Amino acid sequence: MVVKVYGSDYASAKRVMVCLAEKNIQYELIPVDITKGENKDPVYLKLQPFGSTPVIQDGDYTLYESRAIIRYYAEKYKSQGTELFGKTIEERGLVEQWLEVEAHNFQPPLYTMVIQILFSSKMGFTPDQNLIQECEEKLAKVLDIYEERLSTSKYLAGDFFSLADLSHLPFTQYLVGKCEKEYMIKNRKHVSAWWDDISNRPSWKKIRELPLYK
Amino acid sequence: MVVKVYGSDYASAKRVMVCLAEKNIQYELIPVDITKGENKDPVYLKLQPFGSTPVIQDGDYTLYESRAIIRYYAEKYKSQGTELFGKTIEERGLVEQWLEVEAHNFQPPLYTMVIQILFSSKMGFTPDQNLIQECEEKLAKVLDIYEERLSTSKYLAGDFFSLADLSHLPFTQYLVGKCEKEYMIKNRKHVSAWWDDISNRPSWKKIRELPLYK
Repeated sequence: MVVKVYGSDYASAKRVMVCLAEKNIQYELIPVDITKGENKDPVYLKLQPFGSTPVIQDGDYTLYESRAIIRYYAEKYKSQGTELFGKTIEERGLVEQWLEVEAHNFQPPLYTMVIQILFSSKMGFTPDQNLIQECEEKLAKVLDIYEERLSTSKYLAGDFFSLADLSHLPFTQYLVGKCEKEYMIKNRKHVSAWWDDISNRPSWKKIRELPLYK
Repeated sequence: MVVKVYGSDYASAKRVMVCLAEKNIQYELIPVDITKGENKDPVYLKLQPFGSTPVIQDGDYTLYESRAIIRYYAEKYKSQGTELFGKTIEERGLVEQWLEVEAHNFQPPLYTMVIQILFSSKMGFTPDQNLIQECEEKLAKVLDIYEERLSTSKYLAGDFFSLADLSHLPFTQYLVGKCEKEYMIKNRKHVSAWWDDISNRPSWKKIRELPLYK
């Protein structure tokens, strides 16, 4: 049975899609158009009561929150496709650490930048340039720590590609693409090499061709 | 060898401490006083480059981010103390889902309330009553969804206590204690029963007696 992914052409659903691609899991994307309020439809809210995307349905199993879904598939299909948690419990601990850093240090300023730069006109407000600047400064500090880390290991959790790296793909693609802030990556030698590596994985090259990133 | 927990008498370190207690793991708390800037000390920044607490050291293994640390110990000592991930991969998926909900839906408004209500005077600013009200409304909506969920299962991820419940303890204790907003829990029958259950676990009763919650 093919996994159903309910989601939009946005970053969080792509986090799940690239994970499924790394694990060679077939899926069907079921569009949920947030701009039409489909995520607030009572039928959808039964799947995801907070009204966020994505949600997966795998047989009669339903799961939401993109970072929970990628952990679920990395665990369920441990030996299929790319190993995404490392090999030992200690490596997995570091994968979890960097997944948390992505969620709590990296994504919040970048998310605000993406909303302000890319979605403000669709959402009907004027971008706040001071806020964008403030978030860019916060993100720069985070990337300086990444630069230091990536000078000692090829990937975030060690010398192996993992969920921690994968989870950065969708929002970083916004940063280097439509946000026109590729210099934030390119100016940092090790971050730049890491980004070249992970963003050129076949799994991501396929997903990033979807319309929003063009 | 005893696990070292670097942290303050704040919520995130207590998330780790209650997990270690559930797993019957001995630990030593090494105080890091944020009010004195000890978290920005160069020696500490070598352990945790973002300057947050807590960090653990377990032999020569170092790990930070409280939710990564609790996952690490729940995995490493699976069969010691309380089972905190459920029994199956599907149960574990739901534990991960509700851990993510805690981190992304529940904690953010509550964290802002705690800073505004409890720490503003120490930090030298006047609490913003409109912001507190706005956060209370957001949190109320989240708790309404919890109420619905907890009407169908005893705990968040199912009929078993897990990391998902445990992760709520420290900040909810602020809410019902010093924030004086216990009514937000008590007014919701199933949330209230859940809170009575989890907050009376011996592991948490010991931790909550630490000074800050009095």
